[in-house]
Amino acid sequence: TQTSKILILPGDGIGPEVMNEAIKVLKAFETPQRKFELQQELIGGCSIDIHGKPVTDEVKQAALTSDAVLFAAVGGPKWDNARRGLDGPEGGLLQLRKAMDIYANLRPCSSTSPSSSIAKEFSPFRHDVIDGVDFVVVRENCGGAYFGRKIEEEKYAMDEWGYSEAEIQRVTRLSAEVALRHNPPWPVISLDKANVLASSRLWRRVVERTMVAEYPQVKLVHQLADSASLILATNPRSLNGVILADNTFGDMISDQAGSIVGTLGVLPSASLNGLPGDKMPKTRPYGLYEPTHGSAPTIAGQNIANPVAMILCVALMFRYSLSMEAEAQCVENAVRKVLDSGLRTPDLGGKAGTKEMGDAIVSAL
Amino acid sequence: TQTSKILILPGDGIGPEVMNEAIKVLKAFETPQRKFELQQELIGGCSIDIHGKPVTDEVKQAALTSDAVLFAAVGGPKWDNARRGLDGPEGGLLQLRKAMDIYANLRPCSSTSPSSSIAKEFSPFRHDVIDGVDFVVVRENCGGAYFGRKIEEEKYAMDEWGYSEAEIQRVTRLSAEVALRHNPPWPVISLDKANVLASSRLWRRVVERTMVAEYPQVKLVHQLADSASLILATNPRSLNGVILADNTFGDMISDQAGSIVGTLGVLPSASLNGLPGDKMPKTRPYGLYEPTHGSAPTIAGQNIANPVAMILCVALMFRYSLSMEAEAQCVENAVRKVLDSGLRTPDLGGKAGTKEMGDAIVSAL
Ligand SMILES: CC(C)[C@H](C(=O)O)[C@@H](O)C(=O)O
Ligand SMILES: CC(C)[C@H](C(=O)O)[C@@H](O)C(=O)O
Repeated sequence: TQTSKILILPGDGIGPEVMNEAIKVLKAFETPQRKFELQQELIGGCSIDIHGKPVTDEVKQAALTSDAVLFAAVGGPKWDNARRGLDGPEGGLLQLRKAMDIYANLRPCSSTSPSSSIAKEFSPFRHDVIDGVDFVVVRENCGGAYFGRKIEEEKYAMDEWGYSEAEIQRVTRLSAEVALRHNPPWPVISLDKANVLASSRLWRRVVERTMVAEYPQVKLVHQLADSASLILATNPRSLNGVILADNTFGDMISDQAGSIVGTLGVLPSASLNGLPGDKMPKTRPYGLYEPTHGSAPTIAGQNIANPVAMILCVALMFRYSLSMEAEAQCVENAVRKVLDSGLRTPDLGGKAGTKEMGDAIVSAL
Repeated sequence: TQTSKILILPGDGIGPEVMNEAIKVLKAFETPQRKFELQQELIGGCSIDIHGKPVTDEVKQAALTSDAVLFAAVGGPKWDNARRGLDGPEGGLLQLRKAMDIYANLRPCSSTSPSSSIAKEFSPFRHDVIDGVDFVVVRENCGGAYFGRKIEEEKYAMDEWGYSEAEIQRVTRLSAEVALRHNPPWPVISLDKANVLASSRLWRRVVERTMVAEYPQVKLVHQLADSASLILATNPRSLNGVILADNTFGDMISDQAGSIVGTLGVLPSASLNGLPGDKMPKTRPYGLYEPTHGSAPTIAGQNIANPVAMILCVALMFRYSLSMEAEAQCVENAVRKVLDSGLRTPDLGGKAGTKEMGDAIVSAL
């Protein structure tokens, strides 16, 4: 029997509800040969309430000894006056990113499977614009301005937006490994502002050098980040492949990418420290999986939240942490089947409850 | 007779061609009472070729003693191996921004006038999504990461992303003044990442304090920059008003905003040090006006470049530097008339030449 230890972090708002449905889906894959050992802990606002901080050392330790982490959402009006940054509810997530050293955030975006029927109805774009869009954003997740030294005075504030060669190398390698999982390999499209920023010039140099030396079979394209945000909205198919970006540009681009499908309610993400089977040196491949939507406190506890993004996180976890590609596709196919059937939660104009949606997906597995 | 001194900077690539058409339009407004004194100078690659630098002190001085600057475009493959940043072709523009202290970059974006017929045909969005979109992005243009201290070593690079209270105050005031030019006043929607960045927390605090104390009649909304990039692509009408952002987020958002109309070929921009008639302390309102598209070296010299964005820069110059609002609207109406008539340069699927387009707009004035 193979047992995978999964840390469950439901967090705040709609987090616990959507997590419940993801757990149902996960449990459906248990067999005598394959067990999941779930450990549930607090994070975000609920952790502040009980422990006075958004994540405890014990929870960080649990993350480091798990095979993967499922994270739902944090934050809400109750904690909006708490100090922001590392001490606020989102700080739980930021601290966990750093503790697990999950340096790559992946957001797959495809107008085809598994959310094609949603894209058809909810994309703000003309159909001919998004037809055949298929890319994954790989955002550097542990460095740059978001984690640099900070100064915060009464009349001046500053964030250091810095990168080392090693930080750029490892996320470049991971994006190339993602590209190689496609046949033929996807291109890697690297974003920067090398025409203005010193950190971007290093970024471009190191990405170029790493790809040429280690992944000559993967096509590399450099694209200015500002132009990329326009191209993503006018000719997104031309970005098909792996879109690699630093923490800041990646934050903007990966949120904007949600516009292709038109709603974050069905979009999962993965934060990784490596990929199983890649050729990168590391102790172990950590992975944290979270929906791209937030904690939606106004609709919490009403059984109307959309659990699809959270459920698709289980698929990503199967794919990137547990080497269960067939099972990942099985979850994605079930989601597609249910969405194609027209079953929808209220955010997508339907009447289905959170539980009903989860049950339908489990039945479709 | 009132004489306005205008510095003309055609730059590289298609710059000279589109500038010629803008000058035609400008000249059409000369009367015995109103003269324009034009001084033409080099900037960008052509200045590197002759002077060894992208902008000379003489040109900077000329900018500081002009009533306004018309700038077309810089750069091209010929100079791509030159040092980037302040010494490359774009450095001419960056240095000029700093010398003129034009701290606010404005990009109007409207699905109605004057480019409504272009938006209808070329917007990647569904019509119901962009119907009635009307906003202007105000990007801080002289501070932040783009102008901060830099470190560039072999294995590490860093840009300081810093803001002072004074830098945030003045661009906040300018955006409020733009909001007040509408009746009723537009809201100001300020973007930041106050949940992560120290500079964003100062940004939010100073914007809030300045608006409450000095512009209580203008509604202020804070919006996380990453969410804003998604909203801009899913529900852009909800951002109608003045979108205020720092240099980095403003760079991303203002390029992305070009997607509403679908082409940069018809979108002008203004970089300002103040507004005529506002209540802000300054020596004089400098203004530099430039199209949002680039130098398009591959189509240069063929009389096929689209001069509309450059011509609309003349309208913005009339509006923001020369207190000629009626004339500004006259230019915009002429552009609308010509675009509505179906006359198009090849970038928009038409057969009109650059000159033909300019002539048609002059006739329609
Ligand atoms: C909540 C916040 C700290 C976070 C970020 O900016 O990284 C979020 O916006 C994201 O994109 O995951
Ligand atoms: C050319 C470049 C330096 C410039 C910038 O990033 O400011 C451009 O992208 C712009 O947006 O005006």
